[in-house]
Amino acid sequence: MARAHNFCAGPCTLPQSVIEELADELPDFEGAGMSLIEMSHRDPVYDRVHHDTIATLRRLCTVPDDVSILLLQGGATLQFAMLPMNLLGSGRVGAYSVTGSWGKKAKADADTIASTAVAWDGADDGYRSMPLAEDLDIPDDARYLHVTSNETIGGIRLPRFYDLPVRQVADMSSDYLTRPIPWERFDVVYGGAQKNIGPAGLAVVFVRNSVLDEIPATVPSYLSYATHAGSDSLANTPPVFAIWATGKMLAWIEANGGVAAMERLAAERSSMVYDAIDDSGGFYRSPVAVTDRSHTNVVFRLPSEELEARFLAEAEEAGLVNLKGHRSVGGIRASIYNALPTESVTALVDHMAAFAAGNG
Amino acid sequence: MARAHNFCAGPCTLPQSVIEELADELPDFEGAGMSLIEMSHRDPVYDRVHHDTIATLRRLCTVPDDVSILLLQGGATLQFAMLPMNLLGSGRVGAYSVTGSWGKKAKADADTIASTAVAWDGADDGYRSMPLAEDLDIPDDARYLHVTSNETIGGIRLPRFYDLPVRQVADMSSDYLTRPIPWERFDVVYGGAQKNIGPAGLAVVFVRNSVLDEIPATVPSYLSYATHAGSDSLANTPPVFAIWATGKMLAWIEANGGVAAMERLAAERSSMVYDAIDDSGGFYRSPVAVTDRSHTNVVFRLPSEELEARFLAEAEEAGLVNLKGHRSVGGIRASIYNALPTESVTALVDHMAAFAAGNG
Repeated sequence: MARAHNFCAGPCTLPQSVIEELADELPDFEGAGMSLIEMSHRDPVYDRVHHDTIATLRRLCTVPDDVSILLLQGGATLQFAMLPMNLLGSGRVGAYSVTGSWGKKAKADADTIASTAVAWDGADDGYRSMPLAEDLDIPDDARYLHVTSNETIGGIRLPRFYDLPVRQVADMSSDYLTRPIPWERFDVVYGGAQKNIGPAGLAVVFVRNSVLDEIPATVPSYLSYATHAGSDSLANTPPVFAIWATGKMLAWIEANGGVAAMERLAAERSSMVYDAIDDSGGFYRSPVAVTDRSHTNVVFRLPSEELEARFLAEAEEAGLVNLKGHRSVGGIRASIYNALPTESVTALVDHMAAFAAGNG
Repeated sequence: MARAHNFCAGPCTLPQSVIEELADELPDFEGAGMSLIEMSHRDPVYDRVHHDTIATLRRLCTVPDDVSILLLQGGATLQFAMLPMNLLGSGRVGAYSVTGSWGKKAKADADTIASTAVAWDGADDGYRSMPLAEDLDIPDDARYLHVTSNETIGGIRLPRFYDLPVRQVADMSSDYLTRPIPWERFDVVYGGAQKNIGPAGLAVVFVRNSVLDEIPATVPSYLSYATHAGSDSLANTPPVFAIWATGKMLAWIEANGGVAAMERLAAERSSMVYDAIDDSGGFYRSPVAVTDRSHTNVVFRLPSEELEARFLAEAEEAGLVNLKGHRSVGGIRASIYNALPTESVTALVDHMAAFAAGNG
């Protein structure tokens, strides 16, 4: 069976070699007489896989020593709650830059737990751009500014991280491992694995160790960053398969040039699609600010919803799947994550040209 | 490579046929041109796998219509927090029967969130038995009594569920799908998947729908049972692989006679080991009350720790692995979950007889 060109926004396409290795190794792991997913999470063999995944993340993202790497469950969604539970004790305020659906959800959860402030909200403009540093209204007493560095649904990204006096925290679910992170500005960076680094069922949280000292004693065990930082994320049974698969995908990233190469690829491949949009004489239209175009989620519209439906149907016939925009915004969305082969992007651009020629 | 006799307390051994099916189907799911773990969780193909898993659970456990089945992440450990967050709003009290390590952890998390009461605590007796109904001290205003129906580390189980005026909630991580559940007595039943029903990375929560109406509005999105009940556990990206694998294991349970057959097997196979203990003339010793012996986690001691170490070493040479008791209690523990082949239990009993004969 030929591989589909899979533009899914998450779970994402994975490197074919990773999928094949997983399938090969699944029945019996290194001659142990059992699958890795049947092994005790206290077994030295699993322990190596677990710590290799963490160590590879540390190398690839050049994570400093005073930042812990946590392998958790519950996706970025659980972090929307854990973050304010851990950082907003004793009446501290969290400031949120609301740049799309995900930023909005992050703030809504924080509102159930602590005081928040809206540093910026792009709702009136349809979340089509990211604010500049000078647009942000951050209270003096804010514990942090929360940013969503790439909005998967709206298709916008922060072109540069802010350099601000306030500590920052970031949801980087759809762009970590596609760009370097200026760690000195961040106390927490988090994201689900299922876009750029692995399958669903794992969330990675990077947390500055100084944060661990300020966590209120009333945070329950699983929900405290301290629980996981103090146990190398082995306090309870970890999501073994997702960690194993993510470790393989991270090794693949490393073998293919690391984050610098992924950053270059993301820029080049998203440009291929943006160029196809910009060169279409208005047939395709990008709804977002040019400066803030996402490198991982390219959204665009056609002249009518009828044409969009036909574009999607013909794309699917050509093996280009999961190109439909999020149900909340419609249109087309091509998610171009690390593991998507470049020939998939070429196939998309070719389809765009042929479709525009036939329907323009 | 021969399969090990894997007595791990969790993650557990899985049916070999399930592992082989997963490996076969991993590269390309039903000709979709991608793996199931690369597929959108909104895709009709994944949707079928997801809902089949829920439907099979409902059939196997004869779950009534007014109880929702949630597929969550974070293990039973996250439920230690979610349960009181959802059920102990407006000053309600949770009563806990503390029968071992897991009951103790459940209560400790509840203490960070709400008022609790100790209905019973077996610490002074070393957690060697379960309380009778008349031993329980439950406040009149208790919202629920929390029980751990099987303590994985101590090796004790509730021989019969209590029939009480108070609503009950149960951690059944190590014995659901090995015994029928009297649903009319329970508001919530929960457990990690990685013992009797699947791999790590999934927790199943059964919650009575009437509970959903009492959840405080201040519970964050992922932590509210209402979020997941209202979305068939698709509010955010689910742990696709773990749900898929669990669905396969549940189908295997159904094909092998369902919960009634698993209950009979658990009783018969644990009895094989208990008989070997009781017939050893005191060489092997069960530390727990005879009436409360676990059907899934058989713990026993030898005359000395030195003999225990030798027993474990020789067992491992014979391909019998993960028999070491939990580090907090020592000794030997044979976890005999649904997927363990009966020949593994026979091999254990044979090893016990030979070792006792050689060292008695």
